Amino acid sequence: MTRRNTDTTTLIQNVLNGDRRALARLITRVENRTPDAQTALAQLYPHTGRAYLVGVTGAPGTGKSTLVNAIARALRSRDQTVGIVAVDPTSPFSGGAVLGDRIRMNDLTGDRGVFIRSMANRGSLGGLAATTSDVVRVMDAAGFDVILIETVGAGQSEVDIARTAYTTIVIDAPGMGDDVQAIKAGILEIADILVVNKADRPGVQNTVRALRAMLELGHRFRTIRHHGEFMIQQDAPQQDTAQDTAQDAPEYDFWPVPILETIALEHQGIDAVIDAIEQHRAHLHESGMLADRERLRLEAEFAARLRDELLRRLIAERTPAEVAALVDRMVAREIDPAQAVALLVEGE
Amino acid sequence: MTRRNTDTTTLIQNVLNGDRRALARLITRVENRTPDAQTALAQLYPHTGRAYLVGVTGAPGTGKSTLVNAIARALRSRDQTVGIVAVDPTSPFSGGAVLGDRIRMNDLTGDRGVFIRSMANRGSLGGLAATTSDVVRVMDAAGFDVILIETVGAGQSEVDIARTAYTTIVIDAPGMGDDVQAIKAGILEIADILVVNKADRPGVQNTVRALRAMLELGHRFRTIRHHGEFMIQQDAPQQDTAQDTAQDAPEYDFWPVPILETIALEHQGIDAVIDAIEQHRAHLHESGMLADRERLRLEAEFAARLRDELLRRLIAERTPAEVAALVDRMVAREIDPAQAVALLVEGE
Repeated sequence: MTRRNTDTTTLIQNVLNGDRRALARLITRVENRTPDAQTALAQLYPHTGRAYLVGVTGAPGTGKSTLVNAIARALRSRDQTVGIVAVDPTSPFSGGAVLGDRIRMNDLTGDRGVFIRSMANRGSLGGLAATTSDVVRVMDAAGFDVILIETVGAGQSEVDIARTAYTTIVIDAPGMGDDVQAIKAGILEIADILVVNKADRPGVQNTVRALRAMLELGHRFRTIRHHGEFMIQQDAPQQDTAQDTAQDAPEYDFWPVPILETIALEHQGIDAVIDAIEQHRAHLHESGMLADRERLRLEAEFAARLRDELLRRLIAERTPAEVAALVDRMVAREIDPAQAVALLVEGE
Repeated sequence: MTRRNTDTTTLIQNVLNGDRRALARLITRVENRTPDAQTALAQLYPHTGRAYLVGVTGAPGTGKSTLVNAIARALRSRDQTVGIVAVDPTSPFSGGAVLGDRIRMNDLTGDRGVFIRSMANRGSLGGLAATTSDVVRVMDAAGFDVILIETVGAGQSEVDIARTAYTTIVIDAPGMGDDVQAIKAGILEIADILVVNKADRPGVQNTVRALRAMLELGHRFRTIRHHGEFMIQQDAPQQDTAQDTAQDAPEYDFWPVPILETIALEHQGIDAVIDAIEQHRAHLHESGMLADRERLRLEAEFAARLRDELLRRLIAERTPAEVAALVDRMVAREIDPAQAVALLVEGE
């Protein structure tokens, strides 16, 4: 026990000193949710909050990893250290994003100012978002100036990532499909910066035009309010928010979402992306929104962790047979899931 | 009060009688989480479990909606009634998937054997999955033979949808991007049927070959086990499952995932998709996996609802000031989120 404590203390100190092997080891423990990882996270917490968190998201085929690589290189040339967390909501059988890492590493290998970590899906619902927050926090404590959080796909996971980052970059590319759904309104809503990558492909102007039209339809400031709803509206039946959201929204300064064209493979247009990140950061800072985003981020994480912890405690108080009996009754159509929840929560 | 009860009772009866207006009205109440919706869901529950649930998912640009449309038409020509739930994890500002509906409706309008409902994101984390389950259940009670559940994107939301459906169809298309991440291993893992749509495009054989290679890497039966882990592994630190999953997995009959080519816009290859759905259904039935999937589905929904309900109850016992004070301390880096959770749960 003493040995383990000493180990953890040393490990934490080494992480704070920027030791890469200690960093890798602690992240593995965090991913595996070992008991000492929780201790380490608590002790590292006062050292966090200094890194600038940037989310990079977009559909497969947009050249996301190449762009993340290019952004990391550009940040390095401005003397910023960079952590990269590649969140790959995929399966054990792919072995995570190992191949993706290797491709990225070609460019960044040997640079001690860059640290890359791929995350595979750790199974449980919502578990990936929580573990990602923890891994980002460990990198933050290790002193990286900027942490790039790369996600694959579209949907709820991206909204969760947007909660984690201060600036969210959404990538599109020409020829990514012309059906109506491809316009991905939900992703657009979380974008602070839009990048049209592969801008040497035909159709780039169509893509830019479509994105601009979508932006004009939306109101950026809604995003902030949307983030804040998670807890307050927990009990209340949700209203139709189409109109009243616009009226009730706080009067934040308007951020005009830029649409930037890049050819990440040739490192073209990347400096403009870095400049836009800096401008957005300054905008958040001057408008007071940086503190708001940080607070909303912590509130969202708090709620997610509360849900998990409360379930864990309840399940620990009940026997597996009790839970199984309720599932049996649901399967038999005797009680519905809401009734099963009430019985388990209120029952002995 | 009596008036409201009478209304709800009539509404439920009308839904069970297949009244489309009653169905639409009840689904709206379910989406808005009105108190009477909960009553209605409980009363409808004994009438559910008869529809066959099919999930259809894939990246934007694969022609997903067109394929869902074509599948619905083909099912109609086999005298099956069809409900369609389009889960669009997007934002209020797009107004849901209204335009997408309109396009689909052109083909299916006036056919009373088809009912289409688009769902926008209702805000809270995990809320969409729960509401989708409820809406599917209402359609199930209304007597549709098959319910198609269409999702956009990639990632956790698709895994959740896979939990809702018995048969999951994953769509790909040629030219969807050649970067490593595009291989979307996580989505492949949930596929019971793979469809390469837009098969008149160049590169279709490359796409089929890539999918086949990925399938050979993976083991289909892992998916089932993966679904079952959510509750059992709640407390336990997650192990590296690469090896031991294969050993511990139950000995389900192997389902060879077919790779089918379609041109949905010209209705080519659709009959083979319907046949594959029927074969997979028979396979699940004969192997006993149908009952297992149903049970795992209900278990997953049970856990998700428990989390929400426990959080709701805890928050109701605390004052907003207490919660805000803990967030303040997190913002000030005095306590980390795990400590905040412990303080709120254990505190007075």
